[in-house]
Amino acid sequence: MPTLSIGQFDLVYNSFSLVIAVMGAAFLFFLLSRSTVAPAYQRVLLVSALVVGIAGYHYLRIFNSWSAGFVLIDGQYVASGVPFNEAYRYVDWLLTVPLLLVELIAVLSLGAQRRQSLTLRLVIASALMIALGYPGELTLAVGPRLFWGTLSTIPFLYILYVLWRELGDMLKSEPVRVRVLVRNLRLLLLASWGVYPIAYLLPLLNIDPALSLVGRQVGYSLADVIAKPVYGLLIYGIARLKTEMDLAQQLREAPVAVAAD
Amino acid sequence: MPTLSIGQFDLVYNSFSLVIAVMGAAFLFFLLSRSTVAPAYQRVLLVSALVVGIAGYHYLRIFNSWSAGFVLIDGQYVASGVPFNEAYRYVDWLLTVPLLLVELIAVLSLGAQRRQSLTLRLVIASALMIALGYPGELTLAVGPRLFWGTLSTIPFLYILYVLWRELGDMLKSEPVRVRVLVRNLRLLLLASWGVYPIAYLLPLLNIDPALSLVGRQVGYSLADVIAKPVYGLLIYGIARLKTEMDLAQQLREAPVAVAAD
Repeated sequence: MPTLSIGQFDLVYNSFSLVIAVMGAAFLFFLLSRSTVAPAYQRVLLVSALVVGIAGYHYLRIFNSWSAGFVLIDGQYVASGVPFNEAYRYVDWLLTVPLLLVELIAVLSLGAQRRQSLTLRLVIASALMIALGYPGELTLAVGPRLFWGTLSTIPFLYILYVLWRELGDMLKSEPVRVRVLVRNLRLLLLASWGVYPIAYLLPLLNIDPALSLVGRQVGYSLADVIAKPVYGLLIYGIARLKTEMDLAQQLREAPVAVAAD
Repeated sequence: MPTLSIGQFDLVYNSFSLVIAVMGAAFLFFLLSRSTVAPAYQRVLLVSALVVGIAGYHYLRIFNSWSAGFVLIDGQYVASGVPFNEAYRYVDWLLTVPLLLVELIAVLSLGAQRRQSLTLRLVIASALMIALGYPGELTLAVGPRLFWGTLSTIPFLYILYVLWRELGDMLKSEPVRVRVLVRNLRLLLLASWGVYPIAYLLPLLNIDPALSLVGRQVGYSLADVIAKPVYGLLIYGIARLKTEMDLAQQLREAPVAVAAD
């Protein structure tokens, strides 16, 4: 662990605290907004709540691990000897990244068979992606970090293929407004997931280790906020739109019964 | 307590943290999914929630006991003198294992008398199985560990007999799709429960005590995830299927009333 200036240590410390607050608020929001969507989409919001809840738990742990990892000596933060536990992130991603893909599939109107097939393949691919990245995170050496990073990229590319190619075809049966939202969601997913490999590869650039550590932690934190609560909000938007459209459809199909109700 | 490398200590530490996150998420999921099944099965989901809630509490305790049990000295984790409290597991199992069998019986459509008889016998047998295993866990000596392990196997075999023989006969009256799911569930139960005796007997194999300790803790953690949240998800699947089938049955039996609704 490199020695950090007070400003560097605090930037990471405050980023972690910010993420805890955001995840906690998002957890309550998704949980308590379930009643505003049709029953078919309430499970999607529950999964969103679980994702940010799990992330909030891990950021509490990460925050404590960061605080325990340094001691302030003569105006600088020096490694305390207690190692900073980067594994919390990987445990978090191992649980939440598959759930993020479950959310996406669950909010679409796919047949049961298609949904199960897509969900199974995306869950396995995303868990593999995280598990293969972890051994590279344990080292700052160029070779293994590149090796595991490359292996981890294979399931990542498979996920992109499924989301763009397979899901793209299926989206044709969705209404235009839903299609636009799903496309935006997919782009947000790509943009936020794109931050992780950059943060992952930071130690390979020949920059100051303190800057690299701080950049990696702030980068991961920012990416987690976009990939979980912001992504969940977009999913919520889709669920709301589909709730309205389902209702309009029901009104068109059963005008007499509704009028008599 | 053997001395552990940083990697060994961290593997157990991170496994415990993972299990805490999984149990917490599963607790919320089961609790908040009750409304998606018919009232007859809501109690089953409540029991699933209680099981993972109790397990989450114990894993918090186990995590803290593990952290307190070691100190990092010169790059190695050395026993701190505070003993690691393995009893948390047995208290957990004493409460949760009978409840897991209650879940299984409660999700089936058995008559009240049959259900009560099965539940009573399975609860007693499973509590005996846990209680008889515990004295053997307290020692690393071959003799007592084998003695108590063997005693504990008797109620285990009785449970298997009841689930395969008695329950097998009763399952004939369930619809085919339900029968398939219950059979899968029974196999999952056997597979996950099979990990416990292996982890239990690890100290008897002539392997490095550090490896044996780490293997036992990771093995128990993995088995608990399969035996509680994953098992609960399968039970949830059965409850959902039976809810749908009950609804279809009601629609067939009262078509006029529904049309006028």
